[in-house]
Amino acid sequence: MTLSTEAGRALARLRDRAPLVHNITNYVSMDVAANVLLAAGASPVMAHAIEEVEAFVEMSGALVVNIGTLSEAWVRAMHRAASRAAAIGTPWVLDPVGVGATAYRTTVAGELARHRPTVVRGNASEILALAGEAGETKGVDSTKGVDAAREVAAALARRLGCVVAATGKVDFVTDGTRARTVANGDPLMTKVTALGCSASALVGAFLAVTPDPLEATAQALAFVGLAGEIGARGAAGPGSFRVAFMDALQTIDAAVMEDGARIAEA
Amino acid sequence: MTLSTEAGRALARLRDRAPLVHNITNYVSMDVAANVLLAAGASPVMAHAIEEVEAFVEMSGALVVNIGTLSEAWVRAMHRAASRAAAIGTPWVLDPVGVGATAYRTTVAGELARHRPTVVRGNASEILALAGEAGETKGVDSTKGVDAAREVAAALARRLGCVVAATGKVDFVTDGTRARTVANGDPLMTKVTALGCSASALVGAFLAVTPDPLEATAQALAFVGLAGEIGARGAAGPGSFRVAFMDALQTIDAAVMEDGARIAEA
Amino acid sequence: MTLSTEAGRALARLRDRAPLVHNITNYVSMDVAANVLLAAGASPVMAHAIEEVEAFVEMSGALVVNIGTLSEAWVRAMHRAASRAAAIGTPWVLDPVGVGATAYRTTVAGELARHRPTVVRGNASEILALAGEAGETKGVDSTKGVDAAREVAAALARRLGCVVAATGKVDFVTDGTRARTVANGDPLMTKVTALGCSASALVGAFLAVTPDPLEATAQALAFVGLAGEIGARGAAGPGSFRVAFMDALQTIDAAVMEDGARIAEA
Repeated sequence: MTLSTEAGRALARLRDRAPLVHNITNYVSMDVAANVLLAAGASPVMAHAIEEVEAFVEMSGALVVNIGTLSEAWVRAMHRAASRAAAIGTPWVLDPVGVGATAYRTTVAGELARHRPTVVRGNASEILALAGEAGETKGVDSTKGVDAAREVAAALARRLGCVVAATGKVDFVTDGTRARTVANGDPLMTKVTALGCSASALVGAFLAVTPDPLEATAQALAFVGLAGEIGARGAAGPGSFRVAFMDALQTIDAAVMEDGARIAEA
Repeated sequence: MTLSTEAGRALARLRDRAPLVHNITNYVSMDVAANVLLAAGASPVMAHAIEEVEAFVEMSGALVVNIGTLSEAWVRAMHRAASRAAAIGTPWVLDPVGVGATAYRTTVAGELARHRPTVVRGNASEILALAGEAGETKGVDSTKGVDAAREVAAALARRLGCVVAATGKVDFVTDGTRARTVANGDPLMTKVTALGCSASALVGAFLAVTPDPLEATAQALAFVGLAGEIGARGAAGPGSFRVAFMDALQTIDAAVMEDGARIAEA
Repeated sequence: MTLSTEAGRALARLRDRAPLVHNITNYVSMDVAANVLLAAGASPVMAHAIEEVEAFVEMSGALVVNIGTLSEAWVRAMHRAASRAAAIGTPWVLDPVGVGATAYRTTVAGELARHRPTVVRGNASEILALAGEAGETKGVDSTKGVDAAREVAAALARRLGCVVAATGKVDFVTDGTRARTVANGDPLMTKVTALGCSASALVGAFLAVTPDPLEATAQALAFVGLAGEIGARGAAGPGSFRVAFMDALQTIDAAVMEDGARIAEA
């Protein structure tokens, strides 16, 4: 079975099982991430109160932690949730938004990474910064290409014992031994916010239905990239692109996914 | 005068008076709820600081409290606002998002319900959970149909001395003695977030212009359902649906409302 | 060179330099403001943790502080950020949303204004309230016209030593000595949330590329108004308007800006 065929089947499982995905994410992308999950066929929960994050982790198929608009109380809840996920074997995704931009972000992301994430997804600068390399982050946008991050990503994956995904023009996904590239996407995706965060949320959704985290991550990135390609057709700018992107997340079915996913062994 | 005619007149009053509606709501739906109120003709205020919620309650036509992304500081402000609303007779709506999913939510919702809400609006699972019945909540989505909640809703309405609305395919609204069904809506409404929250916000808006809370609630639910029906025509997916739904909230006038509202005595 | 020609060149500089704009803003408009900045060509950062706001101010071309959904922890971070901006000469914008509506807002806005903002942008009621005049604020919406605010705005600009912009049908911008009017815009802009906040965010972006704060502010307001005019053409309501507005922010180029900006000396 090809990687594309597997990707199509994974999407069918996602639609069939509608897994609950618990998100502790930033204020900017919360609305988009929840709607992305819903359009894809998952069931989103957005909850950050320290009193209840463990309960939501226990009932969810995956947890997604995103530090985009972090603050002290949220970070405490992130630790609580990630720790519980690791303890009971719930897959969880760390999206270290803007790590490297400020010392605070670097510290918080590094500490969260100790809870054995299943997947870390970031742009190339973020992956370099999380690995302790001199990645330069301009605000929360990447200044480095994915190629520069490949070896660092593999080393980071081995050190953390997880899958690391550096996303960009071509995404690079590795568990430290095996690797995949994902060549889906469109330049318009960099002109709206929350698409990186949405990719991380979808990695959570695919982790809930695909046992191998490397394949789950590549499938999610192919899916979001494919929705970007379809959404960009005929879009007049970032406003209409976002609308069409959201429509595509629902209309892409297993056959379209199998046909359009560009996942390769690397 | 039929219930539909009354609904059309209520919408005309809403447009005429543009009541201020104070919302203490969740991060996910805040943008949508504010725009829904604005498109409908109301004047939204979103404010949660404990230092000013009483002041906003005092100048508003209604208060809407939604526990979607609750945390301790927000819950304190919700109590302060609800307590003030009850004290001065400002109608207020409780939207107990996800009650039953975690012990924390169940406790918070139960405590807020003691401030004599004018209306409680939730899906069937939430109404069952708030009533202490074994409603099963999957994250924040309902797993129960509205029919199962009818008697429980009426008992809860009598116990709390308020109107209870269990929304779903057909909405059920009761004050414990009288009841209404509202048969507006479209399945696409379950594919985007924040529409339940938006319905609660609109209940607030109609409470500010219709003295009878039972009728106000049914009118608001018919209005949001009708906008969903109109928005769904020609929508290519959840993205374009949300855009068309928002347009419809503004373009529906009293005549369209009278013609399209499907409110019945139950 | 005419003011319109200068406006076109400012937009070209903005696209060329893609300045980082740091926003501490409200939950309702955060997603829109970030996307407005991105569509316009700037690079948005939304971050509010007291641990990192100074670091973001130091790397940004401008800071924008908006009190829409303020609370104690956020206000502390706003003071920290504004104080740092003033100390190192980073231009910063104060958007005193709803000042005058509650005593809390009036106090907070007055205290923030002491950090020598570069620009204060608000509707007429907010400018009157900040100046200590009897502006009446209905929730967060203006009840006063811009004309009533002109003299008060100039006096406030002199007192604070900054530019004051009172926006409305025709915007009035003054540094206490010189003044500009900006006659761009469309009534649909009052039917969606976050456009005032987005205007303030864009003032930040233009401050980063135009040395004269009076001209930078007028340019930003002309740009957002022009996008509103273009977005309103063919919009079926507030939903489709917001989409087309966002598209226009990207498609307006220097020539369209020069042709459409209606900035005049006043």
